[in-house]
Amino acid sequence: MSRGEIKRLFEPESVAVIGASTTPGKIGYSVVRNLRNGGYEGKVYPINPKADEIWGYKVYAGIGKVEGPVDLTVITVPAALTYDSVKEAVAKGTKYITIITSGFGEVGDYETENKIVACANEGGARILGPNIFGVFSAAGKCNTTFSANNILPGNVAILTQSGALGIAMIGKTAAANIGLSVMASIGNKSDLDEADCLEYVIRDDSTKAILMYVEGIKDGIRFMDALRRATAVKPVIILKAGRSQRGAMAAASHTGSLAGSDEIFDAVIKQCGAARAETLEEAFNWCNFAANTPPPKKHNFVIITNGGGIGVMATDACETYNIPLYDDQNVLKEAFTPMTPAFGSVKNPIDITGGATSTDYNLALAASAATKEVEGVMALYCETATFDTENLTPMVKETYKKHKELGKAIVYALVGGELVSDSIRALQKDGIPAYSDVMHAVSSLGVSYNYQNYIAKKHDAADWAKIDTAGINSIIDRALADGRSFLLANEGSDVMKAAGVAIPGSEVAPSLEKAIELAEKMGYPVVMKVVSRDILHKSDAGGVILGVKHKDDVIAGYDTIIKNCKKHNPKAVIDGIEVTEMVSAGTEFIVGGRRDPAFGPVVMFGLGGVYVEVMKDVVFRALPISRDEARSMVDSIKAAKLLSGVRGQAKRDVNSIVDTIIKVSTILNECPRITDIEVNPIVVYEEGKGLKAVDSRIMIAK
Amino acid sequence: MSRGEIKRLFEPESVAVIGASTTPGKIGYSVVRNLRNGGYEGKVYPINPKADEIWGYKVYAGIGKVEGPVDLTVITVPAALTYDSVKEAVAKGTKYITIITSGFGEVGDYETENKIVACANEGGARILGPNIFGVFSAAGKCNTTFSANNILPGNVAILTQSGALGIAMIGKTAAANIGLSVMASIGNKSDLDEADCLEYVIRDDSTKAILMYVEGIKDGIRFMDALRRATAVKPVIILKAGRSQRGAMAAASHTGSLAGSDEIFDAVIKQCGAARAETLEEAFNWCNFAANTPPPKKHNFVIITNGGGIGVMATDACETYNIPLYDDQNVLKEAFTPMTPAFGSVKNPIDITGGATSTDYNLALAASAATKEVEGVMALYCETATFDTENLTPMVKETYKKHKELGKAIVYALVGGELVSDSIRALQKDGIPAYSDVMHAVSSLGVSYNYQNYIAKKHDAADWAKIDTAGINSIIDRALADGRSFLLANEGSDVMKAAGVAIPGSEVAPSLEKAIELAEKMGYPVVMKVVSRDILHKSDAGGVILGVKHKDDVIAGYDTIIKNCKKHNPKAVIDGIEVTEMVSAGTEFIVGGRRDPAFGPVVMFGLGGVYVEVMKDVVFRALPISRDEARSMVDSIKAAKLLSGVRGQAKRDVNSIVDTIIKVSTILNECPRITDIEVNPIVVYEEGKGLKAVDSRIMIAK
Repeated sequence: MSRGEIKRLFEPESVAVIGASTTPGKIGYSVVRNLRNGGYEGKVYPINPKADEIWGYKVYAGIGKVEGPVDLTVITVPAALTYDSVKEAVAKGTKYITIITSGFGEVGDYETENKIVACANEGGARILGPNIFGVFSAAGKCNTTFSANNILPGNVAILTQSGALGIAMIGKTAAANIGLSVMASIGNKSDLDEADCLEYVIRDDSTKAILMYVEGIKDGIRFMDALRRATAVKPVIILKAGRSQRGAMAAASHTGSLAGSDEIFDAVIKQCGAARAETLEEAFNWCNFAANTPPPKKHNFVIITNGGGIGVMATDACETYNIPLYDDQNVLKEAFTPMTPAFGSVKNPIDITGGATSTDYNLALAASAATKEVEGVMALYCETATFDTENLTPMVKETYKKHKELGKAIVYALVGGELVSDSIRALQKDGIPAYSDVMHAVSSLGVSYNYQNYIAKKHDAADWAKIDTAGINSIIDRALADGRSFLLANEGSDVMKAAGVAIPGSEVAPSLEKAIELAEKMGYPVVMKVVSRDILHKSDAGGVILGVKHKDDVIAGYDTIIKNCKKHNPKAVIDGIEVTEMVSAGTEFIVGGRRDPAFGPVVMFGLGGVYVEVMKDVVFRALPISRDEARSMVDSIKAAKLLSGVRGQAKRDVNSIVDTIIKVSTILNECPRITDIEVNPIVVYEEGKGLKAVDSRIMIAK
Repeated sequence: MSRGEIKRLFEPESVAVIGASTTPGKIGYSVVRNLRNGGYEGKVYPINPKADEIWGYKVYAGIGKVEGPVDLTVITVPAALTYDSVKEAVAKGTKYITIITSGFGEVGDYETENKIVACANEGGARILGPNIFGVFSAAGKCNTTFSANNILPGNVAILTQSGALGIAMIGKTAAANIGLSVMASIGNKSDLDEADCLEYVIRDDSTKAILMYVEGIKDGIRFMDALRRATAVKPVIILKAGRSQRGAMAAASHTGSLAGSDEIFDAVIKQCGAARAETLEEAFNWCNFAANTPPPKKHNFVIITNGGGIGVMATDACETYNIPLYDDQNVLKEAFTPMTPAFGSVKNPIDITGGATSTDYNLALAASAATKEVEGVMALYCETATFDTENLTPMVKETYKKHKELGKAIVYALVGGELVSDSIRALQKDGIPAYSDVMHAVSSLGVSYNYQNYIAKKHDAADWAKIDTAGINSIIDRALADGRSFLLANEGSDVMKAAGVAIPGSEVAPSLEKAIELAEKMGYPVVMKVVSRDILHKSDAGGVILGVKHKDDVIAGYDTIIKNCKKHNPKAVIDGIEVTEMVSAGTEFIVGGRRDPAFGPVVMFGLGGVYVEVMKDVVFRALPISRDEARSMVDSIKAAKLLSGVRGQAKRDVNSIVDTIIKVSTILNECPRITDIEVNPIVVYEEGKGLKAVDSRIMIAK
């Protein structure tokens, strides 16, 4: 079924409601009422064997009795009757079925749910739900939800996995004057899911911004694909609960499916250009701004305020949201001196002081409009005793218009009492971005600004390395034939060699004599490590000796390792001792990767050694990525400063890290039997001198 | 002047207003009007040579003409006339003078400001301001601000450094139905400051919670003392902008004084039991809750919700605010099964599902009230089509009352449209903690809960170590006599010895022969380091050789160091080579301290080595601290997990770190000439085996 077709789910020409009811309060009553009250212009067929007319529509005893075609069937009958209703709807030839009824997968009855989907799909129909509150489309004037409120039409699309929250959002958005283009409850995702609904809203011209409430993603790869195409044309804000461990558990028990790793979800949606909100309030503010204000394409912002305190708050918030503040003192001085008293400030933030009237604001904002270097404005206002509050709304309207005409972004934070609140409400009704809190204003602008920066870059490049895939596969073949789900140390080293990742000189000595020969050849100090399929955690078993500095120590070490390992596991088969060149200490990094159950292969980079789990200074990206993206991974960890040279150290070879990230990505891509890979620690040398991957841990599966 | 006396600033029996005016819009007009409209019952003396009567009060040509005594004088005349007015007020015997006028320190005119304060203090008077918008006290029915609004009396005290924000807060709190007990604008803090105003609100019975807006603290030690005494009796919420570097710069230019280190400020106020809000909205929510709801003294909380999504959001927020969720499945099952459908959840969060009516909420909240193990509740509600919204307000009122009577904390988050907003407003008017966003509700409860936990602990203990202060002082004497502002490596080691901090075995060899003797005695490997007053950065000069493993290497190393250092600085006087036992590598920590310009001696602990500046995983405490507090420092860094044994390593000797923190604190306390101390790296061994301080950096001043 091609993508475009899903339009008839949102904009059907005819709707049947199985379980339509004459009893107010019943879901089957509310759905028909909402179709009528929403101004739906297509055909409505209430299905109920015991009624004649509901809300002026003729009632049919069964869907089979309906004369014309049925695009969409809404099912509101009890769970036990749902399968039969679906069967009848499919027989009638309906293409989309929304199942409002609950009591399926979410309470463990996957069997019936699967049977329903199979029945529908076989008949060429698709299911949304079960366990949803319905679908609304402003373009289709079609409200098949059982929401109590009339939905305010507008330009924000909401896709929600939680039904209760969805209904509450209808009321909350209406109260905040945010109109909706689409509202779709996704529910159990037995067949259609958020990726399918995204296909519709991507194409829906009335949708200017998308808000998604997500609890867990099943098919992450399809989701990423749809999300990327969505953010290419409109901003997407995602609210996902379950960031904490306990929250994730609660989400899992709520949706009945594992929520997945929140850190991967977070990385992936940012990689796809979506913004993540932490609260409903943030989500609404950001969406409303993004839907109504063109994203700022310029970079030089100024803060204009009558209160130093809120100016400082806005400055802090600009750092959080990466909004660049403009700083040419000459330009600022010339522009803002005329309306700024001597005890104010013409440095950004511009403080026109508590004595400012609407005239002063008009002058200051005329200056920001007229000064070509100033490309965007955050206008802040504290209610004062000297300001002529009756002129607040007209001042904002006028200055907003002026900036908009010039293509300059402007946002207002108005802090004060009831009169100021009234003014904000009036301005918001006109689509003007005015907020009651500094953080709301700056964050809304910031999210939009960062979205614009995302759009300005190309993201579809995928860089891969040339690696010896056949070589790696034969290593995996042997290990699997051996009955192992992991590679031995020397096999890990061979994988690194096959991928072109530099490792310390190293060889396995099957005898003491060979060990001595190798150590003498490499030069001291060396590391000695046991090689045994029966010993995975070599250090724990006493199978590793670092800093071996002399032939005598090689002899003693060989003996110690064998003794320790035999004691640790008397049955261990020991293949020999690996002798390795000892890499001089330095800051240790990690490059790794794994297959996420939802999002597929994911690559990781971060501060390595023992710090990985403790400091968690790591970043993730879903594959594929470009070299630029790999470079941005390196730059985005906190420890990145260690690579640019702290305390007089030389700059480190960042290129070699980027190479390694791409090589590990390529391994994951070309060797699907590798499930987990951790190259750690990696010691990075001075610029131009590369790195050495000291150890690696590779897990495999058939 | 004793503390109690400041009462007359807030509750004067008589007020003179110098610069009182008959012209509406003038500050001198508004102040007299606000006194009248605020219902002030004391005597009011408007001072103006050209008027007869203002707002019904008799006008005096000069303050000297007033018959009775004047407790408080408010000055609103221009800056040029202010000094003379103060002089007259002092001559009249007034004890408190608030100077609304601006144009002094904040624009650089410290001279006049200082002259004014000197004049007042000599005459036994105290100044609040200049550059303020005034003072309000509900207990005194005394509003000497020029705010346009009537102030809603209540139980939250606001002390604000920003005037414009203060006036805006009057309106914003009134709109949010938050009544004020005190509003004081602190301004330039030429004489009285926030610590003085805290003294009043600590004693003011009508104040139940304190909100402070702070930009920078001058006298941190007095501030901490007042803040500690304040949090001992009422909750304090502090809003401070300037967290970002640029924000701090903006704050500095706004207040005219350095904002100081935000990280130290943050540490200090938490140490003193205050909560820090990031936005005005947070500050208002938290204060309102804290002022109206007794802090929860118990620990077992449940979340009750009709929407899984908001339940998960609340669970996430509980982790952020350290709210413990109750988990006895048997108890929860028994209590909540009756009103929870099979497709809901009786695990915490309790999900009574979107089908819940007010009856179901009443049953669920009756169960939480009746179940003795459940000690606190977060009740969440998503507006749904099935809920009887007209019963929302009564349901909340009734269930709130029931929990309150039983001493159980309860908070409500009600998410929905206009009707739900109306309900929230009505509930808030009755002092019931109902919020429109899950985060607002949970964070308000969490801040109050954490405050209660702070109160439950004793914080006044100060632990010190026994150290050889005389020994340290003589080291400092010699170094100062030598013209240095820092200690040499060996002197640093001697300070460590004097304080009882274990260091690697080490001695200075004035000759090669002695160096060989020392190395052979200590055992290889050793470290060799140059000792020279002329070389501070030893590594940069090539003055350090690590891992010297043999007598021959000592000979070669000695020669190399001398050559390198002579090359680095041909004039360097070299006292010898320090030979040091080489400490086996391990995770490195730092203990340090410095004298903060505002808060005095501060001790620091964190992840050491090169990670200090990069990872910034460090914590600060102002002195003195107890061993318990030192232990809490150790536990609160991210890298703490490295001490409890990761990847099969043994637990580290945390006690020895606590000892070292107390020892470094004692050094800072007893040796005021030490300005900066950094013991880094510190290698910590297994439990019971102590630590070794490998290096230290100590700065001194006369």
